[in-house]
Amino acid sequence: MTIEISAFAWVPPLASGYVRDHRPRWALEEAGLAYNVRILTFEEKETPEYRAWQPFGQVPAYRDDEVRLFESGAILLRIASLSDTLRPRTAQEQADTNAWVFAALNSVELLTMHLAIPALFHPDEPWVEGFRPHAERLVDLRLKALSGWLEDREWLTRRFGVADIMMATVLRDLREEPVLTGHPVAAAYMERCLDRPAFRKALDDQLAEHAAHAPAETVD
Amino acid sequence: MTIEISAFAWVPPLASGYVRDHRPRWALEEAGLAYNVRILTFEEKETPEYRAWQPFGQVPAYRDDEVRLFESGAILLRIASLSDTLRPRTAQEQADTNAWVFAALNSVELLTMHLAIPALFHPDEPWVEGFRPHAERLVDLRLKALSGWLEDREWLTRRFGVADIMMATVLRDLREEPVLTGHPVAAAYMERCLDRPAFRKALDDQLAEHAAHAPAETVD
Repeated sequence: MTIEISAFAWVPPLASGYVRDHRPRWALEEAGLAYNVRILTFEEKETPEYRAWQPFGQVPAYRDDEVRLFESGAILLRIASLSDTLRPRTAQEQADTNAWVFAALNSVELLTMHLAIPALFHPDEPWVEGFRPHAERLVDLRLKALSGWLEDREWLTRRFGVADIMMATVLRDLREEPVLTGHPVAAAYMERCLDRPAFRKALDDQLAEHAAHAPAETVD
Repeated sequence: MTIEISAFAWVPPLASGYVRDHRPRWALEEAGLAYNVRILTFEEKETPEYRAWQPFGQVPAYRDDEVRLFESGAILLRIASLSDTLRPRTAQEQADTNAWVFAALNSVELLTMHLAIPALFHPDEPWVEGFRPHAERLVDLRLKALSGWLEDREWLTRRFGVADIMMATVLRDLREEPVLTGHPVAAAYMERCLDRPAFRKALDDQLAEHAAHAPAETVD
């Protein structure tokens, strides 16, 4: 099976290591599946050819010998289906995996982004200060529920899988936020996920590619 | 196959007709599958029994004879797999369906909620005015990309399916927003989805249940 994912050649330092192609990289490393990276400039994401593959011009997009698709959640489900280690083994395990991948993206990340987007893109605007406590309250509620689920569990589902990859990358966006340290069960779960060698390998590969493509004026 | 979904007995009038159990109702009506509704009070969503089914205390949760799960995205994929009319017929159709269900929830709704949550829950707070143009800009970008995809297509994938149900319900949250009317292709697509009798049947059923359970003091 030939597998290809798309990734940006370079992003600003604040984003490097957090771009979402890290998610399929991590899953592919866990699965032990070889893959190629199609490196894109910001101009290339606007081409009709790339928009036919990824309609929003985002990364990652994915293709293999059988299908092509986009959205990190859908890509992780595809990778799991190809992997002896990540594949859910029963209908209920598949249901649990699907539920938790969606939960990470729509019940948790939808709210963590209310903290991340203003902090990253509008740090000096006056409304950010008013918005923050409200966003923190919503994230706090979700982390409380997540911690309840994880109280007596090692992973979200019966064994480590793509749901954990997705949730850990979502929680990692909160690593500088006091709201996460207020939930030690969720924070410890995240660290358990990030301790996996496949996480680090995927991260190092993304960082190395961005470093190799850094514009001349940004290199120290 | 016995199918059950959860729904709230009652919600405030502003939310009635927009609660997410409308999504599986619509899909089940399209599929022609019979189902039961487990009606919950707000107190019941906090019980350990319900949290074991839906860890965040949200609706809908879903169960059938084989699996139980939560998250409207995962539930729609499950319903599609049970339905002769909604089931993707090839690996690529399945990939397209998964990609667009995730896109609706994570690339579009993640941003539309930046408009909806402040407007609904914090209408009088001073920061909302500063936040709005920024949130509108992000939603506008996504609607532009979505419109490009829909330019020469009737539905998101080869035929009407759960991806359209998901995207239409996400766009419907914008119906009062000028940003949607600025994208006539996306707005017309949404209307095409909402014209389906199954949409209306699911909506009427939710509205009727809320009306039947309205607290005495809220009935005019």
